[in-house]
Amino acid sequence: MSHTAEKLKIVSVDVQDIRFPTSISAHGSDAMHKDPDYSCVYVTLKLRNGMEGHGMTFTLGRGNEIVVAAVESLKDIVLGQVITDIYKDFGNFWRILTSDSQLRWVGPEKGVIHLATSAIVNALWDLWAKILKKPLWRLLVDLEPEQLVSCIDFRYLSNLITKNEAIELLKKGRNGLETRLELIEEKGYPAYTTQAGWIGFTDHQMSEAANKYLELGFTAFKVKVGKNLYEDVKRLEKIRSIIGWDKTLMVDANQIWEVQEAIDWMTQLAVYKPLWIEEPTSPDDVLGHAAIVKALKPLGIGVATGEMCCNRVLFKQFLQANAMDYCQIDSARIGGVNEILAVYLMACKMKVKVCPHAGGIGLCEMVQHLQMWDYVALSGSKQGRMIEFVDEHHEHFDYPLVIRNACYMPPKAPGYSTTLKQETILKYSYPNGSEWLALFQKGLFFKTNK
Amino acid sequence: MSHTAEKLKIVSVDVQDIRFPTSISAHGSDAMHKDPDYSCVYVTLKLRNGMEGHGMTFTLGRGNEIVVAAVESLKDIVLGQVITDIYKDFGNFWRILTSDSQLRWVGPEKGVIHLATSAIVNALWDLWAKILKKPLWRLLVDLEPEQLVSCIDFRYLSNLITKNEAIELLKKGRNGLETRLELIEEKGYPAYTTQAGWIGFTDHQMSEAANKYLELGFTAFKVKVGKNLYEDVKRLEKIRSIIGWDKTLMVDANQIWEVQEAIDWMTQLAVYKPLWIEEPTSPDDVLGHAAIVKALKPLGIGVATGEMCCNRVLFKQFLQANAMDYCQIDSARIGGVNEILAVYLMACKMKVKVCPHAGGIGLCEMVQHLQMWDYVALSGSKQGRMIEFVDEHHEHFDYPLVIRNACYMPPKAPGYSTTLKQETILKYSYPNGSEWLALFQKGLFFKTNK
Repeated sequence: MSHTAEKLKIVSVDVQDIRFPTSISAHGSDAMHKDPDYSCVYVTLKLRNGMEGHGMTFTLGRGNEIVVAAVESLKDIVLGQVITDIYKDFGNFWRILTSDSQLRWVGPEKGVIHLATSAIVNALWDLWAKILKKPLWRLLVDLEPEQLVSCIDFRYLSNLITKNEAIELLKKGRNGLETRLELIEEKGYPAYTTQAGWIGFTDHQMSEAANKYLELGFTAFKVKVGKNLYEDVKRLEKIRSIIGWDKTLMVDANQIWEVQEAIDWMTQLAVYKPLWIEEPTSPDDVLGHAAIVKALKPLGIGVATGEMCCNRVLFKQFLQANAMDYCQIDSARIGGVNEILAVYLMACKMKVKVCPHAGGIGLCEMVQHLQMWDYVALSGSKQGRMIEFVDEHHEHFDYPLVIRNACYMPPKAPGYSTTLKQETILKYSYPNGSEWLALFQKGLFFKTNK
Repeated sequence: MSHTAEKLKIVSVDVQDIRFPTSISAHGSDAMHKDPDYSCVYVTLKLRNGMEGHGMTFTLGRGNEIVVAAVESLKDIVLGQVITDIYKDFGNFWRILTSDSQLRWVGPEKGVIHLATSAIVNALWDLWAKILKKPLWRLLVDLEPEQLVSCIDFRYLSNLITKNEAIELLKKGRNGLETRLELIEEKGYPAYTTQAGWIGFTDHQMSEAANKYLELGFTAFKVKVGKNLYEDVKRLEKIRSIIGWDKTLMVDANQIWEVQEAIDWMTQLAVYKPLWIEEPTSPDDVLGHAAIVKALKPLGIGVATGEMCCNRVLFKQFLQANAMDYCQIDSARIGGVNEILAVYLMACKMKVKVCPHAGGIGLCEMVQHLQMWDYVALSGSKQGRMIEFVDEHHEHFDYPLVIRNACYMPPKAPGYSTTLKQETILKYSYPNGSEWLALFQKGLFFKTNK
């Protein structure tokens, strides 16, 4: 091995369990997830030359330890690799990582093992962008179409999109790229807020939050629904009375309904003119979503889903079956940037708008890069698209996102915006970080190893 | 709490990582999984009165440790429960186990967390059958339709089947039940063998195995395909020359193909008259399977899948979309007996034959119970149905399966046939069992904690 290659070897893969005690307030609550403790599995890859890449996946607290165990089980595949060899044939490396002939049984490509894959893969992208001294979105924009496509494993996708079709889409995406680069630097990318509508909020909390975001210039608001129809009606009545009818309203049921129930319930709420109903039923139910899309179309309500869609094969079917009007990719559930690029390309081909899921820990930081790349270099359009925004936990990052006039501004720092502050790691490592030790002592949480 | 209830409390939930070094031979190899070390996660529930229930899920070796971690994370939900309270409203308890508001994020209901759920739930059923001193299949047969259905969580299924429809199917299933009880005791349930067709086998190994099973009276043989068309042709030519054309042949690609590739490849192999092609493509691709079903129907080839189908919602769609001709439930991938009962009921309603996936560790032991219940009390038919059989690892169980005239004979011992011998646990616990220590010492395996 050459001296240079030796310096670019991955010499350590560390993983940390980071949790924030968000269940103390009702922030983040919805019909399905009453008391989340927003958490992340944080992976640090280190090269012999000292450079580091950071990647993460998001969870709701308990279960974070299982994903940590999965990273431990995957890490031998990454350790000792020369990083530049990975980037030369990234699609192939992604397949190696997801196809270990024994490990794949416990997925394949879904759930815990795929969340762990995502944290590792995201760290590889962060490191790549740092090596090239570019923010990730800009790295993606600058990759030649052939190079970008070489990062994708097209297995199981060929009946919707081929490698060549993907290259063609990316070549087409170059028309007007320079103008869009200027526009994104100047205006950023539209955001919507979820923060006026947590299901655990009182009327007063909702009012206060909605007014705050109106003043900040937000024009699109998402509200959780699905616990109780009467309460939903009250909540939507209230939110419309605050934001008015010229603003955009979306509602989110977090998987609470049966297929017919979703149709019936949303028919009752149609009067409030929601742009979309998000996660009306099981995230695995492609055909169920297709039925809901069909039934709600005449009412002018779209269907959004994707944050819990387990991999590109499920996304492919949602697109093939007209089962989603809005494709809500998540940056950390499917296997990292490589697989997400495949979803963007399929959505582009099928002319479905991508509106990323965000919030949690680090999701906003990551999706902004992906969506900006899509605008600048693929779909070429912001029309009818927005990025979810939740204004929490950004202070824990070295380079937190920047919102201006209700728009995400393009990140400037090299990397994927996924590096946590050292102080945060010391405070929120679970269960031995200083904040957690204090919470245990106060009796607010009960210490476990889970 | 009453004295009786106190005695029926679950006082411990233990979990063990058990692995067998099967990668030394090529047994179990296929186009996707070259070198499995057949393994299981083994859960022991203990009541205060000393009774024990044993449940397991199967994996291919690495990754077993992640499922162990997931059992550890789930076990608080089970610990301290009075077992009879669980059985009184088992469907509800199943939902509690699968819907922890934080843990569900790392699934939901799929992959690692669902494999862990399965091991715990299977232990609960083993214990129930032991308490009632019946083999599990007989417990299922003896449950009143309403009682059996109360074990099932129908969430997300109502657009295919409702609770009441399920009860009706079970009531109809009672016609002629006594006769079928006698028949099953007398003749058992037909098995087929997979053991002549591992992809790592030489011609000689294949011949030897096929002849052995022919002599044992087997009439149905499954062969792995998909690595190389030329080799597949040779392999199928060979197997037909041994078993003749009056016997049943099935082929299994273990997810290796794209959709169109599956159709083209199988068109080439149609001349060998396979009854089914198993797992032609991604186990998540409902619509892809539907396309393959449609294309292969004129050639007389059915499509079988299900061993990696992640939950009842996926199964529902496979059935709704005519995407499977044979439904291959697995006893340990979806969330244990409760969820599998839902799949049998849906398959019955949709008139799709269930032919369980087996082999591995404990899968044959478990599925025999389920399939016998289906015959005696639900579908009422063995027509065109068989249970997979692999004659390995049965010696590790207290009550191994019994095959007579190529048929599974009904288990007689109380429970779910999932209790491992103490000696096996001591030898094959990973990484500190005596067999493993010896293998490490011989240098045949390298010791890790994964």
